[in-house]
Amino acid sequence: MKKSQHHLSFIGAGNVAWHLVQKFETAGHTVHEIYSRNIAKAKALANQLSLVEPVDRLNFQESKARIFFIAVSDDAIDEVVSKLTLPPDALLVHTSGSQPMSSLIQEGTTRVGVFYPLQTFSKGKPIDFSHIPICVEAAHPKDLDLLQQLAGSISQDVRVMNSEERVVLHVAAVFACNFTNYLLGIAEKILAEHQIGLDVLQPLITETLQKALEIGPQKAQTGPAARGDMATIQRHLEFLKNHEDYATIYDLFSRHIAENT
Amino acid sequence: MKKSQHHLSFIGAGNVAWHLVQKFETAGHTVHEIYSRNIAKAKALANQLSLVEPVDRLNFQESKARIFFIAVSDDAIDEVVSKLTLPPDALLVHTSGSQPMSSLIQEGTTRVGVFYPLQTFSKGKPIDFSHIPICVEAAHPKDLDLLQQLAGSISQDVRVMNSEERVVLHVAAVFACNFTNYLLGIAEKILAEHQIGLDVLQPLITETLQKALEIGPQKAQTGPAARGDMATIQRHLEFLKNHEDYATIYDLFSRHIAENT
Repeated sequence: MKKSQHHLSFIGAGNVAWHLVQKFETAGHTVHEIYSRNIAKAKALANQLSLVEPVDRLNFQESKARIFFIAVSDDAIDEVVSKLTLPPDALLVHTSGSQPMSSLIQEGTTRVGVFYPLQTFSKGKPIDFSHIPICVEAAHPKDLDLLQQLAGSISQDVRVMNSEERVVLHVAAVFACNFTNYLLGIAEKILAEHQIGLDVLQPLITETLQKALEIGPQKAQTGPAARGDMATIQRHLEFLKNHEDYATIYDLFSRHIAENT
Repeated sequence: MKKSQHHLSFIGAGNVAWHLVQKFETAGHTVHEIYSRNIAKAKALANQLSLVEPVDRLNFQESKARIFFIAVSDDAIDEVVSKLTLPPDALLVHTSGSQPMSSLIQEGTTRVGVFYPLQTFSKGKPIDFSHIPICVEAAHPKDLDLLQQLAGSISQDVRVMNSEERVVLHVAAVFACNFTNYLLGIAEKILAEHQIGLDVLQPLITETLQKALEIGPQKAQTGPAARGDMATIQRHLEFLKNHEDYATIYDLFSRHIAENT
């Protein structure tokens, strides 16, 4: 694939922008402006880079950028779009997993797309982009090519997905990540009541995850419910009798696992 | 700590025995016998080792071993204990996370203990023991010393835990591992219905887990419910309307997370 240098600007200076902007610069692209309502945030990110101008106005008519990234929280996208002025013929994309591409369309814009890196970002924690799936979508085939090329310059895993498929991905991620994290929180609290740290479970959690990804979660399912070990389930529910919330989840999962194993 | 060579025998030739026996030999201990009801299984494991005798009788009166490991499924422990004949003054331990130490006590045995490696084992998949927590318990202080020393010869993470604390650990592990795996299974099925493989979520799952273990699951909680993003929750529940099971879990978790974040 031929390596092209692209001219970009970012609207938003949060976690996603923080990582993407720096990665794009490293990959040889030029970021011209970073917008934040809070100019201090835009400056903080621009300071990490070479030639970027921090701005707090949404008029980009004079910008040299040709691709504009909206990387703000989902509920701020509409407002940003309504206030935005772009150069003629610019491509506008957002980086959200849950918003449809159509949320970018307004009078005068026809070149729209999505550039969604499927990862959770924290400021200050470096991320290896090369294996992060980047899901791209565009209203025009030429822009899809462009976004695939741009994504391919920072990751080996570029996938074309429409807005409906992104919802599928997002729902699956809520189960596999947000809810999984909540279960780890329950485990942490149960252990903490007996002065045991969550770290005791680290090797087991890591191995469980590896096994699930290697042989598939269905084959990897173990535990009292998978064995039909009713005596242990009863003992655990008895143990949880002062934690109604946890007991509800324990009971629900045990029944589902028993039915599906 | 002084390195002693111990003389061991194993009752059971399943996954736990498979890994422990080989690790003990590597660490310089001698395994004298491996028992299985199915002599072929005992032979298969004994073949991996140097001087081990495969047996299918539970009379160990003539054995040179001094520590006997019961590594059979939980519901077979009682039967094994009732049929077992040990040399005088032998130490009998089991490797179960969910059975109390007292399940080993019968007329004539007073030296009992537990040696529980907190990990999930699959035959043929090598395991690095050095960071696996090994939870030990014994009826007599001298035997506790002995088991700590033995555990310390294969792992850096040896913890003294009584039978009640092991139940805490087991319940926490069910939430953090068995239930987590079940959630990954739901994610896999949702994706599969749209011809997407679970591998798309691998970087996100790995990062979620790392973050939970680094900063704690409570701080690491993200997602629509943590943000109070009711519009997305409603869209996801609508998406799940043909999967009542998943919708129940989605709704329950979202409410719990919203209340606790």
